[in-house]
Amino acid sequence: MGAAILSDLFTEILIPLSAVVGIAFALVQWVLVSAVKLSPERTPAAASSKKNGYGDYLIEEEEGLNDHNVVLKCAEIQSAISEGATSFLFTEYQYVGIFMALFAVLIFLFLGSVEGFSTKSQPCTYSKDKYCKPALANAVFSTVSFILGAITSVVSGFLGMKIATYANARTTLEARKGVGKAFIVAFRSGAVMGFLLASNGLLVLYIVINLFKLYYGDDWEGLFEAITGYGLGGSSMALFGRVGGGIYTKAADVGADLVGKVERNIPEDDPRNPAVIADNVGDNVGDIAGMGSDLFGSYAESSCAALVVASISSFGINHDLTAMCYPLLISSMGIIVCLITTLFATDFFEIKAVKEIEPALKKQLIISTALMTIGIGIVSWIALPSSFTIFNFGEQKLVKNWELFFCVAIGLWAGLVIGFVTEYYTSNAYSPVQDVADSCRTGAATNVIFGLALGYKSVIIPIFAIALSIYVSFSIAAMYGIAVAALGMLSTIATGLAIDAYGPISDNAGGIAEMAGMSHRVRERTDALDAAGNTTAAIGKGFAIGSAALVSLALFGAFVSRAAISMVDVLTPKVFIGLIVGAMLPYWFSAMTMKSVGRAALEMVEEVRRQFNSIPGLMEGTARPDYATCVKISTNASIKEMIPPGALVMFTPLIVGTLFGVETLAGVLAGALVSGVQIAISASNTGGAWDNAKKYIEAGASEHARTLGPKGSDAHKAAVIGDTIGDPLKDTSGPSLNILIKLMAVESLVFAPFFAAHGGLLFKLF
Amino acid sequence: MGAAILSDLFTEILIPLSAVVGIAFALVQWVLVSAVKLSPERTPAAASSKKNGYGDYLIEEEEGLNDHNVVLKCAEIQSAISEGATSFLFTEYQYVGIFMALFAVLIFLFLGSVEGFSTKSQPCTYSKDKYCKPALANAVFSTVSFILGAITSVVSGFLGMKIATYANARTTLEARKGVGKAFIVAFRSGAVMGFLLASNGLLVLYIVINLFKLYYGDDWEGLFEAITGYGLGGSSMALFGRVGGGIYTKAADVGADLVGKVERNIPEDDPRNPAVIADNVGDNVGDIAGMGSDLFGSYAESSCAALVVASISSFGINHDLTAMCYPLLISSMGIIVCLITTLFATDFFEIKAVKEIEPALKKQLIISTALMTIGIGIVSWIALPSSFTIFNFGEQKLVKNWELFFCVAIGLWAGLVIGFVTEYYTSNAYSPVQDVADSCRTGAATNVIFGLALGYKSVIIPIFAIALSIYVSFSIAAMYGIAVAALGMLSTIATGLAIDAYGPISDNAGGIAEMAGMSHRVRERTDALDAAGNTTAAIGKGFAIGSAALVSLALFGAFVSRAAISMVDVLTPKVFIGLIVGAMLPYWFSAMTMKSVGRAALEMVEEVRRQFNSIPGLMEGTARPDYATCVKISTNASIKEMIPPGALVMFTPLIVGTLFGVETLAGVLAGALVSGVQIAISASNTGGAWDNAKKYIEAGASEHARTLGPKGSDAHKAAVIGDTIGDPLKDTSGPSLNILIKLMAVESLVFAPFFAAHGGLLFKLF
Repeated sequence: MGAAILSDLFTEILIPLSAVVGIAFALVQWVLVSAVKLSPERTPAAASSKKNGYGDYLIEEEEGLNDHNVVLKCAEIQSAISEGATSFLFTEYQYVGIFMALFAVLIFLFLGSVEGFSTKSQPCTYSKDKYCKPALANAVFSTVSFILGAITSVVSGFLGMKIATYANARTTLEARKGVGKAFIVAFRSGAVMGFLLASNGLLVLYIVINLFKLYYGDDWEGLFEAITGYGLGGSSMALFGRVGGGIYTKAADVGADLVGKVERNIPEDDPRNPAVIADNVGDNVGDIAGMGSDLFGSYAESSCAALVVASISSFGINHDLTAMCYPLLISSMGIIVCLITTLFATDFFEIKAVKEIEPALKKQLIISTALMTIGIGIVSWIALPSSFTIFNFGEQKLVKNWELFFCVAIGLWAGLVIGFVTEYYTSNAYSPVQDVADSCRTGAATNVIFGLALGYKSVIIPIFAIALSIYVSFSIAAMYGIAVAALGMLSTIATGLAIDAYGPISDNAGGIAEMAGMSHRVRERTDALDAAGNTTAAIGKGFAIGSAALVSLALFGAFVSRAAISMVDVLTPKVFIGLIVGAMLPYWFSAMTMKSVGRAALEMVEEVRRQFNSIPGLMEGTARPDYATCVKISTNASIKEMIPPGALVMFTPLIVGTLFGVETLAGVLAGALVSGVQIAISASNTGGAWDNAKKYIEAGASEHARTLGPKGSDAHKAAVIGDTIGDPLKDTSGPSLNILIKLMAVESLVFAPFFAAHGGLLFKLF
Repeated sequence: MGAAILSDLFTEILIPLSAVVGIAFALVQWVLVSAVKLSPERTPAAASSKKNGYGDYLIEEEEGLNDHNVVLKCAEIQSAISEGATSFLFTEYQYVGIFMALFAVLIFLFLGSVEGFSTKSQPCTYSKDKYCKPALANAVFSTVSFILGAITSVVSGFLGMKIATYANARTTLEARKGVGKAFIVAFRSGAVMGFLLASNGLLVLYIVINLFKLYYGDDWEGLFEAITGYGLGGSSMALFGRVGGGIYTKAADVGADLVGKVERNIPEDDPRNPAVIADNVGDNVGDIAGMGSDLFGSYAESSCAALVVASISSFGINHDLTAMCYPLLISSMGIIVCLITTLFATDFFEIKAVKEIEPALKKQLIISTALMTIGIGIVSWIALPSSFTIFNFGEQKLVKNWELFFCVAIGLWAGLVIGFVTEYYTSNAYSPVQDVADSCRTGAATNVIFGLALGYKSVIIPIFAIALSIYVSFSIAAMYGIAVAALGMLSTIATGLAIDAYGPISDNAGGIAEMAGMSHRVRERTDALDAAGNTTAAIGKGFAIGSAALVSLALFGAFVSRAAISMVDVLTPKVFIGLIVGAMLPYWFSAMTMKSVGRAALEMVEEVRRQFNSIPGLMEGTARPDYATCVKISTNASIKEMIPPGALVMFTPLIVGTLFGVETLAGVLAGALVSGVQIAISASNTGGAWDNAKKYIEAGASEHARTLGPKGSDAHKAAVIGDTIGDPLKDTSGPSLNILIKLMAVESLVFAPFFAAHGGLLFKLF
């Protein structure tokens, strides 16, 4: 088998080191962003630009660049958004905190009861001849890592929100100088978030492993079983973040649009619209904080899935630390690769025109993928023995290091394919979105029909990409292969998050420009940033969904092994009913979340209408709307409505496992996975396409687009309806579904010892 | 084991006898419908009513009852619709005929090649010690039964269409006398179709079995393997019927609505609308002919699935003819039960008010289910030995006759549950549709969001019902249990079809009333019939989908046995990629069909607009629109667009089986099944709910409904948009999906001998 080239000592240094480098890089980006001053005492524009290190040639001087009032106004709006978001997140965390605490107790009780809370050591699950730590220890440490995962997820989401709200007004201000400058501020801010999250996730996981090792010592099987709680904590928090944030943002967005744009004919983000602050707060709590938690969860879970399988493979059995840490080393390499990639966007090239924005973001994906392929090669070469064995449902399968390279690489490239397909279907530079826009000619109905068809169609290639990577990586290294393929897809997470966060930041920047009463040209520039942002948001969701599918399959495989069932035969009634009910769960979940958004939006509409009708001078701009009531409606709706869908996801595995047993639960996981991934992709792409079809008509950049426009035309109105329908699809139900599938899988894995011991009560009784 | 009470001779008499009784009953109903004369020489109303056997008390005399011009006009419109439908179906059958002929050749070549076209007898598949007919015989007879199935399907669809177009103007004329009379004509006509189809399907199958037996003799294994071709033929034809008809009808409907109702503000079915004839033709070719073929296909397949499993169980091994014919006896009993049930609607009770329509239809479901439960009991008691064995993936499982009763009964009752849930979610008498209608207050966007959420939610209970019946029947009698559960659900098919066909007949009756310029009251009555019809159409689709899920699982099980794989383990890469790709297929298929409808509708809209703009006097009603061009657009679109989705479904099993082998194909079938059934249910219920939400607002029957209306209000316009979006969902993609899942399963079963011998080329090569 041979040993790895990299010594254990270096491994122990390299992992935290690259995390620290990532954090340092994020801080540097933050300093650069903060050079854009939000106080009116700011030096004149040209000078400040020099400070940023750019020449003057890009600056398109514009009226109002030195207008102190505008800057003050921007600062004021930004702080209102930031305060709103902070206050909502605190409220949300309070409620979710209670739920999570109760769930932590459940974890402890269920896992502790496996051996009746005995404190005696037990024979190990996989090597019966050795002794392992008692089930009670697993209960304690799983609970602790669950809590740590949840906290890290909260921190990730919260930090992301803070950075985004710090950056949005700065982006607006830079947009006065040109689209290139604004792009760089928005992108840098995204990078701050991306690198902080990726590094933070890696670092915390690394520290937790090392702390747990103090107790577990050589019992790696138990150690990494307990670590899976980290993934569960991260994902549970992410679920509530996505659902709660999603309901918040879309209730406000739909409400604001329906009255403001459709009925009152005022522009998007107009300060006269009472729901406008809630809408902007929503972008930050939903698209930013929610998405941050989500991708952190995926990352944590795929690492946990890989580690738990590795611990029962030759890596764990031989206590080969470097090889064991292969998943973490891949992530470390990812941080370095993304760091280099970021420089291509911010320093090596410059954006000079609107049409360069999307290619620049796309280049980020290509560069990071290309570099990371080399990176994976290096890590696989130095961190793995030339051959080793991987646990494969009871057997040990011989794998070579270069084979594992293919597993990671195919995941990485499948991610790129998914990203490109998503871009093709959601960017208004290509025919699919243009066709959807064209269908607005005959009204909202055809727009919706074409949009739904587009979403369905956009599923095809990603599914083939996922299927291919599953086939290859599964054939090579069983579920360890799948887990590292998922890690491969997520290895460039820092870049992925950067371009993903860039979207809502630009969206908010546009909102601030509108509210601060800045010129039409500034708004046009932020709109251009935002249109690209819609596409990147869809790409980010594509990554999240694709990786969730892989992660969830890897966790599923680990669960099946841990639950000691040797196969999941579709042609047994227990499994099949699980499969069909599992495939139904995403529909149930979507019904809940969409209805929630619809209901909250109705409430919001009534309130906004009430304010327009009852506050004199509101339409004329002489009176201020009552923003706070709208914020409150969104907050209350979100808090109230996020619990049922959250509970559905959190309790389904517990109930199914306890009452029906592991076979049915395995069926549920497989069904939810294969069905959920399709709805998630189609929902998120349909929504993205509608949004950009509307922007296509608004921008009127081509001959064709101009025949459909301008704003306010019948075709545009039809496009707005599509956009509104797409909101809950793309920002509430769609992106939450990927959490549904992976959360149920990781939860099943965490509770597997209990289900294996006491599950299937109903079948035992009858 | 013992023998059945019923002797083989009686079985051989009872089955064709009940089919003949069913046909005779259908003819009686037809004679009663034809008593409504479509020629102006008709006797005065009161006299003719007496002839029909009703008293005078129900007759609400109305102006125009004796207006010969109206009658002439109705006759004229009816013949236009009938001619249009006939001509379309002939065109469709020509194109599909070529495809089917080519596919028949494929079947012969693939199956013949299994043993290299050898004419020598071979050891049987399941009992290796015996000799069975050669594979070449199977190829020949499978091809023949494929063609017979296709022809029977064509006849079913065509007859249904003929009856419906015969009945619709008669319903209109009766509506002048009152809603009760109109209801009876519409319902009787539906019954003609229901009984003809059910009896026809049974009779042809019975004759085919007996003819094939002349060659096969005692080789029942080979005989019933060849018979599965009958199911494949029926379903293939049904697929094209549903897709082609669905595209035809919805292109016309969407096109007519978008210009007529939304832009020009003229009522539905206004004769000034150039697309109106195409729309009415569409109802008959899509909803009637397509649906008839579809349910015939389900019936044929579940019978085939049951028979093929029975042939390798003790029934077949012992050559126990009566027990072998158990599935056919269940269907025979179903015809008798439905016959009695029909009398409850037409003779035992009378409809006197609008609000009695839906309960009357619902009562049909309850009565038929209750009676059929007894019927199943009787058949199970007299036709089955007290105990017997059922083939269960290589083993023989001991089953008792009363256990099999439960399998059939649970399928039957699950059907009722699905029917009721569907009614709850699609009828405007309940809160879900009213909520959707209410959401129109804030525009089309919220309407669509609520409608989609409703569709998703409506999946939950049907899936649990299906899961429960699968679990019970699978546990009792393996896939034979599932097959007879499907038959149980379809045993009341005659009643199901009657209430299903009633819908489009009423819809057309309304159209004819409008076009013939009949009074507002007549239109109101036909609208009331139609609203109930929307719900029953949704119920019919619910049955079709639910039974398709069971049928498809039974066929899947039979395929797996025939393909000689002992299990379908999700946790093997081959199976899993099949599963996830299979779950994607319904999305691919829906994308194709919805886009087709959208594209054809755009073309229709342009043409209708062109006519309104270029034909002087059209809006004033002084000039006649050019109906023929619209009919041509629908025809061409339908013929052109039905081939790709049809080919996708027909070729997927062939390609997957040949290249990837039976394990992957098994995964594809399972994935398509569990994912497709959800989309099918949600699409069809969402569409039904939108349609009835619109009707709810139009009818203004409650205080709440009146606050949303009247026609032309903003809320109503929003509702019309929802209705239009729902059209392709509920009448094109949704109902075709259930054919997709069962067709792929039956095709896999037919080709199983080939796949088992030569499949999986790709994996064999690499």
